[in-house]
Amino acid sequence: MSDLIGQLIAKLVAALGEDTVLVGGDVTSRSAGWGLTEPNAAAAVVRPRTTDQVATTLRLCHEASQTVCVQGGMTGLVHGNVARAGEIALSLERMNKIEEIDELGRTMTVQAGVPLQTIQEKAYEVGLMFPLDLGARGSCQIGGNVATNAGGNRVIRYGMTRDLVLGLEAVLADGTVISSMFKMVKNNSGYDLKQLFIGSEGTLGIVTRVVLRLVRQPRSHNIALVSIASFDKVTGFLRAAQDRLGADLSAFEVMWDDFYWLVTSPPAKSLPPLPHGSPFYVLVEALGAHQEEDGERFERVLGACLEEELIEDAVLGRSRAERDKLWEIRDDVEQMGRMGPIFTYDIGLAIGDMEAYVAEVRGRIGQRWPDARIVVFGHLGDGNLHVVVGVGDGSREARRAVEAIVYGALESRGGTVSAEHGIGFEKRPYLKLTRSDAELALMRTLKQALDPRGILNPGRVLEPA
Amino acid sequence: MSDLIGQLIAKLVAALGEDTVLVGGDVTSRSAGWGLTEPNAAAAVVRPRTTDQVATTLRLCHEASQTVCVQGGMTGLVHGNVARAGEIALSLERMNKIEEIDELGRTMTVQAGVPLQTIQEKAYEVGLMFPLDLGARGSCQIGGNVATNAGGNRVIRYGMTRDLVLGLEAVLADGTVISSMFKMVKNNSGYDLKQLFIGSEGTLGIVTRVVLRLVRQPRSHNIALVSIASFDKVTGFLRAAQDRLGADLSAFEVMWDDFYWLVTSPPAKSLPPLPHGSPFYVLVEALGAHQEEDGERFERVLGACLEEELIEDAVLGRSRAERDKLWEIRDDVEQMGRMGPIFTYDIGLAIGDMEAYVAEVRGRIGQRWPDARIVVFGHLGDGNLHVVVGVGDGSREARRAVEAIVYGALESRGGTVSAEHGIGFEKRPYLKLTRSDAELALMRTLKQALDPRGILNPGRVLEPA
Repeated sequence: MSDLIGQLIAKLVAALGEDTVLVGGDVTSRSAGWGLTEPNAAAAVVRPRTTDQVATTLRLCHEASQTVCVQGGMTGLVHGNVARAGEIALSLERMNKIEEIDELGRTMTVQAGVPLQTIQEKAYEVGLMFPLDLGARGSCQIGGNVATNAGGNRVIRYGMTRDLVLGLEAVLADGTVISSMFKMVKNNSGYDLKQLFIGSEGTLGIVTRVVLRLVRQPRSHNIALVSIASFDKVTGFLRAAQDRLGADLSAFEVMWDDFYWLVTSPPAKSLPPLPHGSPFYVLVEALGAHQEEDGERFERVLGACLEEELIEDAVLGRSRAERDKLWEIRDDVEQMGRMGPIFTYDIGLAIGDMEAYVAEVRGRIGQRWPDARIVVFGHLGDGNLHVVVGVGDGSREARRAVEAIVYGALESRGGTVSAEHGIGFEKRPYLKLTRSDAELALMRTLKQALDPRGILNPGRVLEPA
Repeated sequence: MSDLIGQLIAKLVAALGEDTVLVGGDVTSRSAGWGLTEPNAAAAVVRPRTTDQVATTLRLCHEASQTVCVQGGMTGLVHGNVARAGEIALSLERMNKIEEIDELGRTMTVQAGVPLQTIQEKAYEVGLMFPLDLGARGSCQIGGNVATNAGGNRVIRYGMTRDLVLGLEAVLADGTVISSMFKMVKNNSGYDLKQLFIGSEGTLGIVTRVVLRLVRQPRSHNIALVSIASFDKVTGFLRAAQDRLGADLSAFEVMWDDFYWLVTSPPAKSLPPLPHGSPFYVLVEALGAHQEEDGERFERVLGACLEEELIEDAVLGRSRAERDKLWEIRDDVEQMGRMGPIFTYDIGLAIGDMEAYVAEVRGRIGQRWPDARIVVFGHLGDGNLHVVVGVGDGSREARRAVEAIVYGALESRGGTVSAEHGIGFEKRPYLKLTRSDAELALMRTLKQALDPRGILNPGRVLEPA
């Protein structure tokens, strides 16, 4: 550790107290990031309890031009939260208070370090729901969800995290506190500054507090797994579900046959509720306001789609246990491990381009690696597919070659290299495939304006200046 | 006109053609802005047909440090589009093409000058709906809707304009074209640049093209006017409507008794469908997926609310004509003219603070002007109220005094001086009441970074540098 960092750490300890600044073994024993086994490489981990302490930390780091890595629940998939040697990590873990629940206004005011699941549960206790939901719910923190604009399974109905944030507070690189803790859906009073901090992955400021939008708890919950004979019919079924289930439609998760096979064959958690052999399977879910009527309508809609031959077969989740079982199929992504070394992607493109896109990727990968396995699944209604590729070779070179194909086929289609996971370090080399030079230059202009010394999460999203 | 402007106009004519650059009487005869009778004061009006022409215009103006006023349908209520002497106006009126409708992906790609109503109608023709709706629909242009993040009547269900924009293209002050014409709901590939241009009222860039999000056309439409005995019961009824109508709830428009009286007493367009005398009236609307079932549910929910004494009385709109009649009551804002000279406000605050806020404003205004009339109505579910005040005196001094009360009572409540109309010139003096010094400084940082010469809509939203 350099003398300069040592002096800064001493200043941080003096300003914040010893228990707030971890060093040595207290740092190396912490998780370095999702799926990583190496020690945490940060020079120190600062764990502020208040916005003021975050501001003090950043002010001191800014004065010293010290780079800072922002850490939350450490569940990010693009390694934006992985500290590099010489960085000071700032963890929001002790800013974990729920400050207020406004039942009437349907808002919850929280500090950034509250785990997502805690928020979901607290909302539930007062008859409300916080609709953001993703696999990492138990560990991920709301500040990270906001910084990465997390998506998840119910975006089709409730939107991304961006749509669920009414107000927020963030600290800029120099320690300035920007507090825009509004509680209203409508607010056109000057620039909507919160948008800067949502989805910019901690590179423009550190989110410290958030006003979240809650919704009334749904009173009905209907779900089915259906099998479908062609991609055209998948989109026909989507259209029918949107028309006939209306705003209740809360999930429309597509699984290509090879994904379905993998998650319903031993040793997967589930047996196949519908036989193998169809090219597509869709998990369709509706959340409504009246259990009995909605259930009848849901069954009637599926019945009509069967008659119209949009779908081949359907199985309903009639109880909570049955519903959970159906979701378990979709969520059993661990089965991908059976493919050997894999590369996973989170791409976005227009629904109308998906079939040709998947065919092109399959074709080009199959040409180069005849034994390759490719499974595709995702949030069809949101234009978001997850593509998992195993070519029997986990090397960096193989990965680059696969990425050239997976991302290359997006370029001409106006797609995105990241629909929901973000850019971090992992996808930075590919950002230029789907964002123009002018867009990248404008991103750098913003970064320069808000963080002129480049201390906040440097190298994530954008190349360091 | 100065020589410098004359030279610049000559350059613009040379680059864009004579028919693209209006001067003299062709300028003065144009509308100066909503409700204004004076001539348009712009030195010239440039009417580009393409993004390239917008870019050329801005590049030349930037080189000359020439200020530019952006104009659309000229329906803005805060005079942000009113050209000042010496400004060159840039009107998007000839960029009025609908470029593409993607029925499956439910998107429409349009140029900025397309009127809102045209977009609504084109969507309708293909079985879809563009849900943004406001009184100025026939004249306002989508570029202006985006630049001001327009709201309207159905925000409670479909969100603000911001929520309906998937991608956009904008031209920066120096002529750089930023094209982020994505079509996906989910896209976390770097900073979400479109957010900069939505709601910043043309001060950070000029929106030239937009990818809009469409929704499936609802198949049911139910509406009722109800009378309610107390504000507590208004919020109880909102809660019940959210719970029992679920995601179908598309409007919840509250009218305080004095507003209702004004719009249902001669010479207003409407007779009172429910008798005068209740303290509150609410227009409640649901858009669903099944006409028969939804109608039954809607009536049953109202019936239950009557039994539970949440509402006193209700009248249903059973036909299209009846539904239109009910909306006509809410929309007959011209009746405000009967109050003599009036000042109108568009404020936002938490629902739980509304009753005390209105009481405070009434009390303080009544104390100073015992004969004052105050009517209140608005989009309760979105935290947005419109307050109209008549004190028998339309002078600037009276206005400032009323504003001090109306806006002053927001400050301690974390409210906003503009929920949906924006800031423009009109509300600039009050922006500081609900935005902190740090927030205003950050807004100026953004303005400086994107428009260093301050040529774009100067003086709107922020003080000129």
